[in-house]
Amino acid sequence: MTDRKTSWIESANDGQTDFPLQNLPYGIFSANGKTPRVGVAIGDMVLDLAVLDEAGLLPAAAKGAFDGDSLNRFIALGKPVWSETRQRLTALLSGDDKALEGNPALRAAALAPASWVTLHLPVQIPGYTDFYSSKEHATNVGRMFRDPENALLPNWLEIPIGYNGRASSVVVSGTELHRPNGQIKLPNEARPLFGPCRKLDFELEMGFIVGKDSALGAPVSTAAAPEHMFGMVLLNDWSARDIQQWEYVPLGPFNSKTFGTSISPWVVTMEALEPFRRDNPAQSPEPLSYLRQQARNAYDIDLEVLLRADGAEDAATISRTNFKAMYWTMAQQLAHHTVSGCNVRVGDLMGSGTISGTTPDSYGSLLELTRNGAEPVTLPGGAKRGFLEDGDEVVMRGWCQGDGYRIGFGEVRGRILPAIAA
Amino acid sequence: MTDRKTSWIESANDGQTDFPLQNLPYGIFSANGKTPRVGVAIGDMVLDLAVLDEAGLLPAAAKGAFDGDSLNRFIALGKPVWSETRQRLTALLSGDDKALEGNPALRAAALAPASWVTLHLPVQIPGYTDFYSSKEHATNVGRMFRDPENALLPNWLEIPIGYNGRASSVVVSGTELHRPNGQIKLPNEARPLFGPCRKLDFELEMGFIVGKDSALGAPVSTAAAPEHMFGMVLLNDWSARDIQQWEYVPLGPFNSKTFGTSISPWVVTMEALEPFRRDNPAQSPEPLSYLRQQARNAYDIDLEVLLRADGAEDAATISRTNFKAMYWTMAQQLAHHTVSGCNVRVGDLMGSGTISGTTPDSYGSLLELTRNGAEPVTLPGGAKRGFLEDGDEVVMRGWCQGDGYRIGFGEVRGRILPAIAA
Repeated sequence: MTDRKTSWIESANDGQTDFPLQNLPYGIFSANGKTPRVGVAIGDMVLDLAVLDEAGLLPAAAKGAFDGDSLNRFIALGKPVWSETRQRLTALLSGDDKALEGNPALRAAALAPASWVTLHLPVQIPGYTDFYSSKEHATNVGRMFRDPENALLPNWLEIPIGYNGRASSVVVSGTELHRPNGQIKLPNEARPLFGPCRKLDFELEMGFIVGKDSALGAPVSTAAAPEHMFGMVLLNDWSARDIQQWEYVPLGPFNSKTFGTSISPWVVTMEALEPFRRDNPAQSPEPLSYLRQQARNAYDIDLEVLLRADGAEDAATISRTNFKAMYWTMAQQLAHHTVSGCNVRVGDLMGSGTISGTTPDSYGSLLELTRNGAEPVTLPGGAKRGFLEDGDEVVMRGWCQGDGYRIGFGEVRGRILPAIAA
Repeated sequence: MTDRKTSWIESANDGQTDFPLQNLPYGIFSANGKTPRVGVAIGDMVLDLAVLDEAGLLPAAAKGAFDGDSLNRFIALGKPVWSETRQRLTALLSGDDKALEGNPALRAAALAPASWVTLHLPVQIPGYTDFYSSKEHATNVGRMFRDPENALLPNWLEIPIGYNGRASSVVVSGTELHRPNGQIKLPNEARPLFGPCRKLDFELEMGFIVGKDSALGAPVSTAAAPEHMFGMVLLNDWSARDIQQWEYVPLGPFNSKTFGTSISPWVVTMEALEPFRRDNPAQSPEPLSYLRQQARNAYDIDLEVLLRADGAEDAATISRTNFKAMYWTMAQQLAHHTVSGCNVRVGDLMGSGTISGTTPDSYGSLLELTRNGAEPVTLPGGAKRGFLEDGDEVVMRGWCQGDGYRIGFGEVRGRILPAIAA
């Protein structure tokens, strides 16, 4: 029994929901033929902030920030407004303030059952950067594709390696993606062939959403980095391994990644995640000056990947891991991103890189789980998968486990459609 | 003597200007304290399209597309509207239609001397991709950094290699940039140091601006590609060679490029460039099916790079080359970019990659011109440069030489400020 605050929306209090009163993640939803607007998930309901704003129940500083089709306008208002809005929502949904609970007409207008609404991409994303911050993942990949004896490249322990991703093809959970066509170089052929990817994979990642612009030429320090973070999402960095292997030298992955990246629809705020900050992982050698950090920048977030084979009833859990083991923290990623003078903008998405644990059942990609397809995973019912087949669906879930409650991210889900005839 | 049409704006007719009646490039300008809006360069004047639109002199289909701070709204209207607008402007500026020429009050309101206006970034850029399409450049770089005997990587002749760039730091000509700080690994040191770049370079490129959205999962063929191109700009892909060399394996260049990319303020339309289409360069081996092209997709554009050393009076021309020698065409770049299903959007910027010719005086970077700094260029007055020093200014110019006129791109100019104290 804890004394944490509960909501008059009962489904928020069962200890199992991803969306208790302590979470209050933001997203964009539409329902009832109304235009997309900002909502907050609470239990099995979605709260319409445009309606609450209209009713004058949200902070004056946020007036008019909730009726658009992205969170960007709200995010751009800055951290004090995020906090004030969170406090208001907590008061309204706990019943400390009766303005919503005690007004049946307003409740009917502002609360929609989550199963009735359509969720959209929460953020208009001006830039998407993907990092590579799990030491286990980088080691596993290096072992398979480069030198098993020197799996980790020399720069990896110095640089939070990252690269620019493609923002246009970031899609919301539930969006189906076609298997990409591309160039594939088979070992015994002189030239590549052109055709559908044969090694289609997922990558379990998380991403943070930038909450504050930085100026060109003005680096963000690790100490200032948390000021620039609004919240986090689950992220599936779909990857075409065969296309990637042929294309990635010398300028990095391109078509093997740009065909689609899926994120979860609810953005969990850094404020909601605050109780789940943990000590930073040990780093050796000690990072260069601009990467050193004082604050605890790791987060304890349980993660799992489920795979539903085409035609199967149920999805099987094929990986379980935790975000806290990432070698480079988000604060270090942002400090590195901006240390050259590069600016970031409200809504930018920063992917963590594949999150792999130390044991074979905690790897964040099929590449690692199946050793590049050589040791397929067996699913309940007997289906085997080295890589993804058409019709397969991947579901990623994440949550912070509190005492009697959890701060959940919901899920990011995606199904693979056959390749388009080329 | 040619019979080409001339303008009643005399400065457009001297055969030397970049901006004759045949050009009509679009940009964003502000003057007189008015908000930024769309302008067209004509001789030494800038024509205010928001004023012309207000006066009812532009196509009805383009109504309201010219008073914003980017070209995106106009571009999104599509090719027929671009053509109709060009025809209207040609009629108004040639005097075939007297509505502007014969109206002194309107002329005064709509025409500003170019030297009086401020030019802004012409396009709001949702995505920036940079290719690597000069065979000479790829060979020169491979020779220096990889294997002199096998300078061209095996995938280069098959793939129009490209990577995602950073859109947030694309700036308009004239923007000064700080020398980036970053990680530099010296050969005899065990660990990298952190400090200002010591090998700061430019890259002479051009870029095209995407004129039409494509849908996720819907590749754009080489045949359809020209429909998706609005126009072209000059592009300087500033590069920190020492940072690049340490960071780029395995995910490509990041901080070495993201600190800034400069483009010219005037977007020269594909329609204006039409007379300068040329036969495609020979490609061997014949590209895979999706990269084959029927149309003439090469363009004859003369290019030069000037360097003004810090404190020097004059800039010296250090490179002269031509865009037509690029191995992969823009149509092939776009077909490759989208073949995986990746979508493109109006305003996307697609860089060509460094444009290097076959002779040492036609290379598009100091890296190549000076053999990685080993053979500095000597400038008039005696200054030597292996790489850029603080206060140095780089100017790139481009033009298509017609019979008695030229279609010019103006210039992209940028000066290097000292590194910010880290």
